[in-house]
Amino acid sequence: MFRLMPKETAYFDLFEKSAKNLIQAAQLLEETMKDYGRIQENANRLERIEHEGDQITHEIMAKMNRTFITPIDREDIHQLASALDDVLDFIEAVTERMVLYKIPRVTPQAQQIATVIRRQAEEINKVIPRLREMNHATIMEHCIEINRLENEGDRLLREAVVQLFDGGGNPLDVMKWRELYDLLETATDKCEDVAVAIEGIVLKNA
Amino acid sequence: MFRLMPKETAYFDLFEKSAKNLIQAAQLLEETMKDYGRIQENANRLERIEHEGDQITHEIMAKMNRTFITPIDREDIHQLASALDDVLDFIEAVTERMVLYKIPRVTPQAQQIATVIRRQAEEINKVIPRLREMNHATIMEHCIEINRLENEGDRLLREAVVQLFDGGGNPLDVMKWRELYDLLETATDKCEDVAVAIEGIVLKNA
Amino acid sequence: MFRLMPKETAYFDLFEKSAKNLIQAAQLLEETMKDYGRIQENANRLERIEHEGDQITHEIMAKMNRTFITPIDREDIHQLASALDDVLDFIEAVTERMVLYKIPRVTPQAQQIATVIRRQAEEINKVIPRLREMNHATIMEHCIEINRLENEGDRLLREAVVQLFDGGGNPLDVMKWRELYDLLETATDKCEDVAVAIEGIVLKNA
Repeated sequence: MFRLMPKETAYFDLFEKSAKNLIQAAQLLEETMKDYGRIQENANRLERIEHEGDQITHEIMAKMNRTFITPIDREDIHQLASALDDVLDFIEAVTERMVLYKIPRVTPQAQQIATVIRRQAEEINKVIPRLREMNHATIMEHCIEINRLENEGDRLLREAVVQLFDGGGNPLDVMKWRELYDLLETATDKCEDVAVAIEGIVLKNA
Repeated sequence: MFRLMPKETAYFDLFEKSAKNLIQAAQLLEETMKDYGRIQENANRLERIEHEGDQITHEIMAKMNRTFITPIDREDIHQLASALDDVLDFIEAVTERMVLYKIPRVTPQAQQIATVIRRQAEEINKVIPRLREMNHATIMEHCIEINRLENEGDRLLREAVVQLFDGGGNPLDVMKWRELYDLLETATDKCEDVAVAIEGIVLKNA
Repeated sequence: MFRLMPKETAYFDLFEKSAKNLIQAAQLLEETMKDYGRIQENANRLERIEHEGDQITHEIMAKMNRTFITPIDREDIHQLASALDDVLDFIEAVTERMVLYKIPRVTPQAQQIATVIRRQAEEINKVIPRLREMNHATIMEHCIEINRLENEGDRLLREAVVQLFDGGGNPLDVMKWRELYDLLETATDKCEDVAVAIEGIVLKNA
């Protein structure tokens, strides 16, 4: 017997699983920035969450490569799964690098940007389940909010970089923080890529 | 009534609009490097041009997602539109970063590389309108010139980086310029990506 | 007369040529790290190998754009050819940058990472010929080994970066090595991308 429906909803299940995993990671990043004493413990937890995310991504890609007919265009499945995976990778990279670089304390801007990323992840977590019914207006609202947050993150990052170079810190510390801000910026950018992938799907299917 | 033709030329119109926007940005970058006193004013203008570019890119992508039949392969439209958008983003990023980093003056190499980028943008602006008639020989000539200019830019960037590290500047200034040269290099690389996208289109359609 | 077979094997021939070119480059990188006195000579040789690689990649892409039916999905051909090209580019960038930055001697970690890259290239060189018969089990074994080596490279790179920032070197030297480690890391990542592309092909065709 050839059943099409179970396969069709499986992608949506996997994307939701991926988004739930992502919001956990983003909350943990925000908590770490607020309660920096737990950096080592949280970095370890984030590493496990990131592995879990890798497995979900792998499952989506494998399913896509095995099946001929997909409920969403293959290229869109690929784009969305990759973007979700990338956000997670960059969130995890931030805490890993903070441990490696023995960063003694966080900056206020890093805290604020982590909050922006957590709010973007929340929007992603809200919008992904809406792909099942493809409600154009609701989905676009969340995507616009993700983009607005990316602009807010950009503004914070510009502020942070100005302070970093004006602050008279020693060059090695400036180098480390320049890299950390770059990772945070890329995380917010990748959230925007998630929104772009979702917009593409909605425009094709609405 | 179903009219196919107006839709078919619309992509070419939008790509030309995108290329015209790009040449404006590239000219402004070159002018800024020659008359650095106008950096703040020109950075603001470039920000507006970049927003305009975002809208054109968005229009191309939205049209592609809404229409079933396209005059050029969808993946090629996507690749060309993204590459054009990327060049613009990196040109804008250079002036934005120069303002943020309070760069007091430009280096001769930065001037020369900006000229290379302006010349690449001119080639792009000449070659894009040729996509309408798909004249293989003419189009390839411009693409080869874009690649030749990328090699010239590469040579200048290598020189610039050698001088930067040999120059005995303070580490924070070296860090800032290393980043600026990286943005300039990526701008020339993205021009080459435009040429690669165009070559792909021509090979399929000629 | 319409002959399909010669065209079908041509892609496999080109991918094997690309993999053979890559293993030469990776061996040369490893040798350079062990016998650093030959850096200038080897950097020149690597530049020629990289040009040769560009031509093979160009040949694959041009063939793909000219032909309508391909033995492997076009997107997969594109992904595999690009990933192979990227590994080569980053290997070449390492030696080019070492010359530009006048690096006087190599670190033990750079040596070890170069060995990891050479072993990844060897796996790639073994697995590519297996695409002809699409033997799922054998191919996956090599892909898993490429990924395992990437994890080993990651561990070495983390160690290297910790020592770099703890080592009390002068900031400009730290900056140069931070960049070199980044290039080495990207080379191992791109080897993993080759494995991902190959896995995708096998899952679709096995």
